[in-house]
Amino acid sequence: MKLNILGCYAATPRSFTNPSSQVLEINNNLFLIDCGEGTQVQLRKNKIKFSRIKHVFISHLHGDHCYGLVGLISTFRLLNRETELHVYGPKGIKEIITLQLRLSNSWTNYPLYFHELTSKEPQLLYENEKVSVETIPLDHRIYTNGFLFKEKQGDRKLLVNKALEYNIDVSLYNSLKKGKDVTSETGELIPNELVTTAPVAPKSYAYCSDTAFYPKMIPQIKDATVLYHESTFLEDRANLAAPTKHSTAKQAATIAREADVKKLILGHYSTRYTNINLFKEEACSIFPEVELADDGKVFHFE
Amino acid sequence: MKLNILGCYAATPRSFTNPSSQVLEINNNLFLIDCGEGTQVQLRKNKIKFSRIKHVFISHLHGDHCYGLVGLISTFRLLNRETELHVYGPKGIKEIITLQLRLSNSWTNYPLYFHELTSKEPQLLYENEKVSVETIPLDHRIYTNGFLFKEKQGDRKLLVNKALEYNIDVSLYNSLKKGKDVTSETGELIPNELVTTAPVAPKSYAYCSDTAFYPKMIPQIKDATVLYHESTFLEDRANLAAPTKHSTAKQAATIAREADVKKLILGHYSTRYTNINLFKEEACSIFPEVELADDGKVFHFE
Repeated sequence: MKLNILGCYAATPRSFTNPSSQVLEINNNLFLIDCGEGTQVQLRKNKIKFSRIKHVFISHLHGDHCYGLVGLISTFRLLNRETELHVYGPKGIKEIITLQLRLSNSWTNYPLYFHELTSKEPQLLYENEKVSVETIPLDHRIYTNGFLFKEKQGDRKLLVNKALEYNIDVSLYNSLKKGKDVTSETGELIPNELVTTAPVAPKSYAYCSDTAFYPKMIPQIKDATVLYHESTFLEDRANLAAPTKHSTAKQAATIAREADVKKLILGHYSTRYTNINLFKEEACSIFPEVELADDGKVFHFE
Repeated sequence: MKLNILGCYAATPRSFTNPSSQVLEINNNLFLIDCGEGTQVQLRKNKIKFSRIKHVFISHLHGDHCYGLVGLISTFRLLNRETELHVYGPKGIKEIITLQLRLSNSWTNYPLYFHELTSKEPQLLYENEKVSVETIPLDHRIYTNGFLFKEKQGDRKLLVNKALEYNIDVSLYNSLKKGKDVTSETGELIPNELVTTAPVAPKSYAYCSDTAFYPKMIPQIKDATVLYHESTFLEDRANLAAPTKHSTAKQAATIAREADVKKLILGHYSTRYTNINLFKEEACSIFPEVELADDGKVFHFE
């Protein structure tokens, strides 16, 4: 599981910072999460293969999370994309994109599917054999979802030498991986745990931006491998968090602690701050495993 | 008259090139012409004062000319702009912007006026005491206008020493500047040309992008000080120009020559070319006064 931060600053793009966008690589899926203005250039700068992106998840319709989408969709067309593209986002996203494509007489030459969201309850958006993606309803000024990406429980790991030792036929290996007990060639019942070990624990990634302090999300993101939680403000401007429906670094850390996540990544910093290290300092007073997102930074979660 | 090129490459923004946008400073007016994705960052990089921009002219609704507008309008709001902003562009531009502002619940806190264009004839868009702006109808795949920015004829230059010599009362100086003959304090009729010289010739700037080879524009841009004309292709791909309704460098130079402009600036290069000097070479074979636009380049026209 690998996370590439393309942009993680609030509000308006600047010469040296970018609005929200990130790419999650999980079990060979490349998921684009949010798409602020300039995302397509950030994808190029970070050498991410455009064609591998098949799913884009938009948290909400504030510009710093979605103004780069129409340009990316248009560029896919210019690059002669053929692969289908799925866009998941709040109701309205389809009208925003299709209006602009219609007025520029520039229809896509690849299949483009919109999955518009209105539910305020968690909702399964996508799954394949390896991963699933669901919404995490958040509390912001407009309708907003975070996204929870979860690996599915994999097969048990087969100890081939043990299987040979117990004279188990190769045709039964798949049953062993699925956790079943089998009968050896000599007729003996072999309990599964003698020839397999537990599968690698599935990893999960919770993206929660933008949101006010919102403990209601905790049960859903419980024990996540990684939580990205917005922290727009430090304590010095905690008074701005509630009215703007954003969070402080300490509030993000409180969510991380209560949800028992393994690691917290902070981002969506207000551009009024020049030293983002202070976000880590404040968060660490509540939860120790804190990392700071920054544009171009790559996290590997093994 | 000063021209700041923010972006001048066709199609899709890249790590090192930007789509169409430029700022024309003329008689203390700052006009933004086209606004591709990333324009607000280019404005910052080029240290242009956001608040001085009061008029934005959008040639057409292809993404590389307008996808940066909604972000710029939103950023103006975040910067607490109070000055009014006028946007001139094809019909549809208002719907594109207002839909996105409505869905993000982010209305502007400054007066925002849209002037939607549908006419296929030249049209006066704006004028004050010093300058005027009119459309230049172009021939592209969708409805497109260039823009002609013209200084107005200024006052005649008063030769103060001469006026004193002829005993002309100070109260008549303004009449002299306006070209009138006056009577001296000794009752003598003083012909204007004895105490004034001709005003500085007014300058003009014609922006023509995107367009096929379109000689119909020539009478309107006749004798312009500067013509910016798109040149998407070199001769090697002249066959692509007509079907895509773009121009070659030679076609741009032909327009410049026929219109007797003082200087031609080429831009809107297809991103397939790595050496833009070839555009100048080809154009110069037809018209000598050629300059190449490039991102971040500033032209001063004295």
